[in-house]
Amino acid sequence: MELHEYAAYDATGLRELITTGQITPQDAEDAARRALAAAHADLNALTGPLYEPAGSHDPDGPFGGVPFLIKDSGPFARGTAFRLGSRAIRGVIADADHELMTRFRAAGLVTLGQTTAPEFGLSFSTEPVLHGPTRNPWAPDRGVGGSSGGAAALVAAGAVPVAHGNDGAGSIRVPAAACGLVGLKPSRGRTPGSDVAFGHIYEFALTRTVRDTARLLDAVSTPNHFDTHQAPPPVRPFARELTAAPERLRVALAVAPWSGVPVDPEVAAATETAGALLEWLGHTVEPARPEFDAEDVVESLMLGGIATGLAVLRGGRRPDPSLLEAGSRAFIREAEAATAADLLTLLDARQRVTRSIGHFFAGGYDVLVTPTLGQLPAPHGTLDYDNPAHDARGWLRTMLAYGPFTAPFNVSGTPAISLPLGQSRAGLPIGVQLAAGYGREDLLLRLAAQLEEAAPWRDRQPSLFVG
Amino acid sequence: MELHEYAAYDATGLRELITTGQITPQDAEDAARRALAAAHADLNALTGPLYEPAGSHDPDGPFGGVPFLIKDSGPFARGTAFRLGSRAIRGVIADADHELMTRFRAAGLVTLGQTTAPEFGLSFSTEPVLHGPTRNPWAPDRGVGGSSGGAAALVAAGAVPVAHGNDGAGSIRVPAAACGLVGLKPSRGRTPGSDVAFGHIYEFALTRTVRDTARLLDAVSTPNHFDTHQAPPPVRPFARELTAAPERLRVALAVAPWSGVPVDPEVAAATETAGALLEWLGHTVEPARPEFDAEDVVESLMLGGIATGLAVLRGGRRPDPSLLEAGSRAFIREAEAATAADLLTLLDARQRVTRSIGHFFAGGYDVLVTPTLGQLPAPHGTLDYDNPAHDARGWLRTMLAYGPFTAPFNVSGTPAISLPLGQSRAGLPIGVQLAAGYGREDLLLRLAAQLEEAAPWRDRQPSLFVG
Repeated sequence: MELHEYAAYDATGLRELITTGQITPQDAEDAARRALAAAHADLNALTGPLYEPAGSHDPDGPFGGVPFLIKDSGPFARGTAFRLGSRAIRGVIADADHELMTRFRAAGLVTLGQTTAPEFGLSFSTEPVLHGPTRNPWAPDRGVGGSSGGAAALVAAGAVPVAHGNDGAGSIRVPAAACGLVGLKPSRGRTPGSDVAFGHIYEFALTRTVRDTARLLDAVSTPNHFDTHQAPPPVRPFARELTAAPERLRVALAVAPWSGVPVDPEVAAATETAGALLEWLGHTVEPARPEFDAEDVVESLMLGGIATGLAVLRGGRRPDPSLLEAGSRAFIREAEAATAADLLTLLDARQRVTRSIGHFFAGGYDVLVTPTLGQLPAPHGTLDYDNPAHDARGWLRTMLAYGPFTAPFNVSGTPAISLPLGQSRAGLPIGVQLAAGYGREDLLLRLAAQLEEAAPWRDRQPSLFVG
Repeated sequence: MELHEYAAYDATGLRELITTGQITPQDAEDAARRALAAAHADLNALTGPLYEPAGSHDPDGPFGGVPFLIKDSGPFARGTAFRLGSRAIRGVIADADHELMTRFRAAGLVTLGQTTAPEFGLSFSTEPVLHGPTRNPWAPDRGVGGSSGGAAALVAAGAVPVAHGNDGAGSIRVPAAACGLVGLKPSRGRTPGSDVAFGHIYEFALTRTVRDTARLLDAVSTPNHFDTHQAPPPVRPFARELTAAPERLRVALAVAPWSGVPVDPEVAAATETAGALLEWLGHTVEPARPEFDAEDVVESLMLGGIATGLAVLRGGRRPDPSLLEAGSRAFIREAEAATAADLLTLLDARQRVTRSIGHFFAGGYDVLVTPTLGQLPAPHGTLDYDNPAHDARGWLRTMLAYGPFTAPFNVSGTPAISLPLGQSRAGLPIGVQLAAGYGREDLLLRLAAQLEEAAPWRDRQPSLFVG
């Protein structure tokens, strides 16, 4: 299979080629291995040599034979060494698959590599000291966002159609925006793994098409009896939303972030254009947003940072501080010092944000449209996690100045998706975020499918694209 | 209205008398005030003189004009002093209603008093030093269970048809069992307030009939955008389950508790009888239960105990230790000492129990039937929260030896209901617990309605019954 042919298909398309006998799964895997080798050489997006697939995926799953990548962060796949982007972590190897990995394998996805991420996933850039910066296929001098940065680079470059990511403050949506992809952060409790970090981390994937996101969500979000949070099951498969009769939705549009940080004019314009397109599609669009204190979002994110710090300290494996990046040292200090009372105070902040967002969507708005990032993809080094000048909260504020729109929905547990609707004059991708009420991925996917049809992005390709 | 006539009606029945003009709301309120005064004199179940209703309930709500009581524990009603069963708390007065209270008022319930509870709700007995023991209308020398003990005593005695309760380890179901009532602990996130104490406290009510429980759940569980946990909305109103066509369910029956503590033979026999009745009704009944370490339940409950301790310490209001019961001193010590790392370890224990119970219900069983309490209602003084011999975990183990079946479902977030299906030879009530998977109150209510019809309890009355 030629690489330019392979890279033209999304996961659903590749699977169709396999089920109709036009290619074999081995053809897809061979093409993917060549594509990954070529793309990694350009992008620095894999953590090391490719390893063999475990052969334990289900070839008859809905994505049977589709090449796939997992992120160098939890949750873990058995037998694979994870370093969490850290020089201080020698390589954690799990005996058993995490439930999410079990579901990826049951879906038929063939894991062909592990993607780069910043240390412990605590940055909106993917430039760990361990690996150096991952490059953006749209502009190699620019970052890919983070923390699911390697995944975003390789999906954008056409090396795989879909890759695992997770999102603790925007880590699926931010790299999706920076690399021109579809990135869904599901509802809390939709996918397995949501008990980690007080429910601030959401597991899922990055794709190039809305249909891949919808079909993969169907495949891995089957009733989640794995966690204490459990999202309501959809009334029909998410894939059915793609062709659902459009109904008139009430859409809120907000271009200004809660923290008051500036937004790039091209990003603002792309968001306004998305609003205009939604109006043209028959929806009601009006300026509105839930209101809350941006500092409460910072406090809520400290829950995730402290939980991450505690996870690193777990089991008495105290990492050598000289091998940690400065940001990680700050979060570990916070984790060591935190009392139960501190956590309860942070949970109070979370509840204030949650209530505001909950009331907003309960009060009549179906969807909120915002930019995903406040800026265009940043040059390497802009967001420096290893800079010792920041304390933990200072680092979070720095990250949120770059991406001020995503984290509130990690706090609230409600779903949000980034769509590659915009493009800067210089050709850089611009993401627009759609957010909805708890459990309402159906609304997001229905609207995303409408937008993808009305303003398709499939013909825009980055300068570095395999084949 | 004569008291014997008033006390014969459940909430649904009283409301029908009002809507059909047979009585006025004032008739119901007058009867309730007389009934409460008489019952309280016998039972010691109110915290003080009755106060005037705020007049802010909605007379046209589904329970418009139905007399109601709130428990002396959070969440708070505006303008009412709460002492949380503690000599150390002077009387907390909230400026605004909690969301749950707002919904009780919108449902039309007329709050006529505040019911007794053990200090900070941390006991399965209702014998706070502040008030002395609340007496059981079936046997005044016996306790009413706890912590919603005053509520249970007054509903059982016919003073009101329904009263607020909350349940952090069994505090609705245990007093329901001890007093011959229907007590539902809903799913995590079904009713507002579930963010308190790491989601271990569940707010709802005690009733005499299944229909009152179903209709009240419909009234107060409208989509919960108030909390970070949100239960899936029912596919139809819960009240519709009462008359739903019975389908064949797969029922698991377990009489032995996880901790291995002994179960009273009469309690075991009543549970077996309930199983036989379910089989006779056409369901499949087989011995089975989810498996987990009973000590993980103790650890999980420490989350609630520590959160309660921290809430008491909040805002720098450090209570005089000499005014606290010994159990509370122990939980406050734990709260002061707990680190964030300690909490994460407790959350791990919770997740192990959650997963076992989640997998059990996902694996094919619709409902699990167990006893509610392991024992008959205990004589006063049996469970002594003021005994300084226990540390916090020791106290929890003592409570769980009396009621070993309820707390696992606080941990897992899944719903469970106690039904007054049994009676001892001496005439004491015996509760049987039905538990189901997350969000499946519909199954519990459908089965409860079938059982209520097949083995009605309405004609059994305690020796102390108003009128």
